Amino acid sequence: MIGIKSIASYVPTAGLDNYAQGAKFGKDETFIFGKIGSTFLPRKADEQETSDLCVEAAKALFANNPDLDPQAIDALIVVTQNGDEEGLPHTAAIVQDKLGLSTRVAAFDVSLGCSGYVYGLYAIKGFMEAAGLKNGLLITADPYSKIVDPEDRNTTMLFGDAATATWMGEDATWQLGQARFGTDGSGAAHLKVTDGNFFMNGRQVFNFALIKVPAHLNELLDASGLTAADIDAFCIHQGSAAIVDAVARRFDEDPDSTVKDKFVKDMLETGNTVSSSIPLLLEKHMLDGKWKRVAISGFGVGLSWGSAIIHRP
Amino acid sequence: MIGIKSIASYVPTAGLDNYAQGAKFGKDETFIFGKIGSTFLPRKADEQETSDLCVEAAKALFANNPDLDPQAIDALIVVTQNGDEEGLPHTAAIVQDKLGLSTRVAAFDVSLGCSGYVYGLYAIKGFMEAAGLKNGLLITADPYSKIVDPEDRNTTMLFGDAATATWMGEDATWQLGQARFGTDGSGAAHLKVTDGNFFMNGRQVFNFALIKVPAHLNELLDASGLTAADIDAFCIHQGSAAIVDAVARRFDEDPDSTVKDKFVKDMLETGNTVSSSIPLLLEKHMLDGKWKRVAISGFGVGLSWGSAIIHRP
Repeated sequence: MIGIKSIASYVPTAGLDNYAQGAKFGKDETFIFGKIGSTFLPRKADEQETSDLCVEAAKALFANNPDLDPQAIDALIVVTQNGDEEGLPHTAAIVQDKLGLSTRVAAFDVSLGCSGYVYGLYAIKGFMEAAGLKNGLLITADPYSKIVDPEDRNTTMLFGDAATATWMGEDATWQLGQARFGTDGSGAAHLKVTDGNFFMNGRQVFNFALIKVPAHLNELLDASGLTAADIDAFCIHQGSAAIVDAVARRFDEDPDSTVKDKFVKDMLETGNTVSSSIPLLLEKHMLDGKWKRVAISGFGVGLSWGSAIIHRP
Repeated sequence: MIGIKSIASYVPTAGLDNYAQGAKFGKDETFIFGKIGSTFLPRKADEQETSDLCVEAAKALFANNPDLDPQAIDALIVVTQNGDEEGLPHTAAIVQDKLGLSTRVAAFDVSLGCSGYVYGLYAIKGFMEAAGLKNGLLITADPYSKIVDPEDRNTTMLFGDAATATWMGEDATWQLGQARFGTDGSGAAHLKVTDGNFFMNGRQVFNFALIKVPAHLNELLDASGLTAADIDAFCIHQGSAAIVDAVARRFDEDPDSTVKDKFVKDMLETGNTVSSSIPLLLEKHMLDGKWKRVAISGFGVGLSWGSAIIHRP
């Protein structure tokens, strides 16, 4: 059974002071800290391509795992909607070359946004098991700084650049349990790029998350024969502090319950990193922690959503 | 075990007379027929989006399979590098909406070119098995008419627009056997889009195919404990008549052998349809035929290649 063996990341050290950005748009520190949730937004350098972020995350993974020979990598998926080139070739091929991986690697991109890590986990596990592959890299890198207009107050205070790399293989500490997925293309226009500029209808996306995600998590728990008490942590996409808080409150509407405290909120110095937000949480809080069972949920562009339970066997 | 249950396609009836195109570039009918291999190149209408081609192929699949309830589709992968939008959202979400599929569908795009169908088969089978899904659509649609310059003699005589839809599910007639994959991003520049225009270094791509594909097929046969005599047909990517002929000759260099006759060549009225070329062959020649075991191989953008053996159980 292919599972999660290790996760590493690359977060650019350069970036934007979000309090300063907020001031420009008349937003005070309470709003930036409490609603946006990020006081600093990492930004890649202009000359850094998406593939370069992928390479940095993979190098960090290799450095952390001396038992992983890069030449043993036989599967590589890059989750991105902001790859190096205009559609073709795929970024995964460029990453294969820049990392000096074997040419015997099966490499492709998966096009998804904030739901991408959850889909990507099942896509790479399934692909590897179907094709008999042994060591996979699932990379997320979706630098929205390429498409966000710095003058668009609806988006420029939200997004941060980052990349993550997850080693998938046998004898893994974390296994994938049940998952549920959903797609509603009738909401495609709420998050899209036109003439190189990203547009987001924040209110529609907020409402979508608030309606879909708590119900989806409950459905997943029911299908798995579990309750919220069986879950040590909920690591959901860090769209904004307001979204995470609202989803947590809606998930457990009992004001005396402490379930909502299990929703991890940690985006202070990263921003919304799209498909990298969940693996950033898992890297920081799950891998070496005491948790036994974690629920993850991603939601965004498409519209698309996916939730899963991962656990120590 | 998830396998191939049915394949359908959509090929636009409008298109280009390739003899007329050849004449414009000083290429005679012998060249067009013998080297290019296509006398007609289908072209989508200007107002047809990539998702519209996907929808037509899926509708043909539904029409051919009254036992497949569209509402039972729970997985949808679109293989494309020329989707509807600029990177985001993914085309699969738009297809979900246009087809009126359930919102309980897991949908994403896979970014690959001419190798995409082989990868896509293992990606959707694996994803479905890992996530417990039952009825998948693997759609290919990569209309190069969006990016090919009609004045570029290296590409405009080659490519045709088309889409295919493959129903993946249980109790399938055809099962996926062993597969092998490869990626060499050092050749990424040989096939790429810049400022909206597709560039191909035809000689480099031809040499790549000639070196990689026959060796890859032989390696796959060895790994499967099979010989060419066990394969009823080789359905490889229809890059051009010259490429198919050259790969076949290189695969079996014995001039008295009939193995090379097992390489199917059928692109006369379709052109190079990128990731749709292999499923177009399978739809036409395999599904209702007498073959028991078929080798497939796709190769192109990336550079990327993938070969597999599919068989009736």
